[in-house]
Amino acid sequence: MVVKVYGPEYASSKRVIVCLVEKEIEFEVVDIDLFKGENKSPDYLKLQPFGLLPAIQDGDYTLYESRAIIRYYVEKYKSQGTELFGKTMEEKGKVEQWLEVEAHNFHPPLYTLVLHTVFSSKLGITPDQKVIQENEAKLGKVLDIYEERLSTSKYLAGDFFSLADLSHLPFGHYLLNGAGKGYMIRDRKHVSAWWDVISNRPSWKKVLQLFPYPT
Amino acid sequence: MVVKVYGPEYASSKRVIVCLVEKEIEFEVVDIDLFKGENKSPDYLKLQPFGLLPAIQDGDYTLYESRAIIRYYVEKYKSQGTELFGKTMEEKGKVEQWLEVEAHNFHPPLYTLVLHTVFSSKLGITPDQKVIQENEAKLGKVLDIYEERLSTSKYLAGDFFSLADLSHLPFGHYLLNGAGKGYMIRDRKHVSAWWDVISNRPSWKKVLQLFPYPT
Repeated sequence: MVVKVYGPEYASSKRVIVCLVEKEIEFEVVDIDLFKGENKSPDYLKLQPFGLLPAIQDGDYTLYESRAIIRYYVEKYKSQGTELFGKTMEEKGKVEQWLEVEAHNFHPPLYTLVLHTVFSSKLGITPDQKVIQENEAKLGKVLDIYEERLSTSKYLAGDFFSLADLSHLPFGHYLLNGAGKGYMIRDRKHVSAWWDVISNRPSWKKVLQLFPYPT
Repeated sequence: MVVKVYGPEYASSKRVIVCLVEKEIEFEVVDIDLFKGENKSPDYLKLQPFGLLPAIQDGDYTLYESRAIIRYYVEKYKSQGTELFGKTMEEKGKVEQWLEVEAHNFHPPLYTLVLHTVFSSKLGITPDQKVIQENEAKLGKVLDIYEERLSTSKYLAGDFFSLADLSHLPFGHYLLNGAGKGYMIRDRKHVSAWWDVISNRPSWKKVLQLFPYPT
């Protein structure tokens, strides 16, 4: 069964796609144009009642929420492609911990920054410098903790690439591309080295090549 | 090994504790007083560098982020206590989906509501009626989708109690206790019935009895 992924150009959907590539799982994509409101169409709302991206369809099975989808596929194809949960239950626990840090500490300030820099004109938002500064400061504090963690560990969850690292790629990309905040990565030696390692993986390069970000 | 749970009185830590009770896992607690800043002490920051609750210590193993901790223990004690991830991989996928919905759709507006109602005086926040109204409206839309889901399914992920339901207990409790927003549950027939079922589980009653909420 080929997995259908909705809305491949958007960042959250790319979280799913890069995972499918790492796991060597066949997929096809279905375009959804957020800026035309296609995520609020009755058909799409049947799949994802909150009207958010991404969602997947896999035969009769459907699922939404990117971090739920990637967990599902990593377990379903445990012995295929890259092992993204580590080898032991304790390693998996740490992957889960850093996946949650990504979702709750890294993502929210970055998402606000992206809205107020990359998408302000498209969304008709007047970029608010105070909001930008506050969220940059919040994200900076988070990245300081990453810097310390990555000074003793090659990847976030340990000495292995995992879902926790992968999950940072789609929105992290905007810091260096579009948001003009690349220095937040580059000024932190270990974060910078980590970013180079994870963003140079063939899987991520393939995603960027196949599905350019919306502009 | 007895699991040590830090900060048992706070809502996020209760997410861990109710899970340990469901899984029949022995634990002890370590008090952390947020209002005295004990979560920023050097010792606690070694355990949880972001200074957030909860964290656990289990022999030499430590973990933080409540939703990571509960996933870890549900897998580690798969055949003990309540089965909180369902029986199949597909059921587990749906549990993960609704756990993410809890974290990203249900929790953020509710958390803001709780800050501006329950804890405003303790935190020195002037309750902002506009913020309260906006977040109540957001949460209401989320609960409308829950209402539809729960009209065809006894629990969120299917016809079985799971981590997805459990994860709503600690902050959902505030809607009916302290925030004065119980009508948001009670005005929605299926949400109300679901809430009664999950909040009457012996595990949750035990948590409330053992560890009263901070006032």
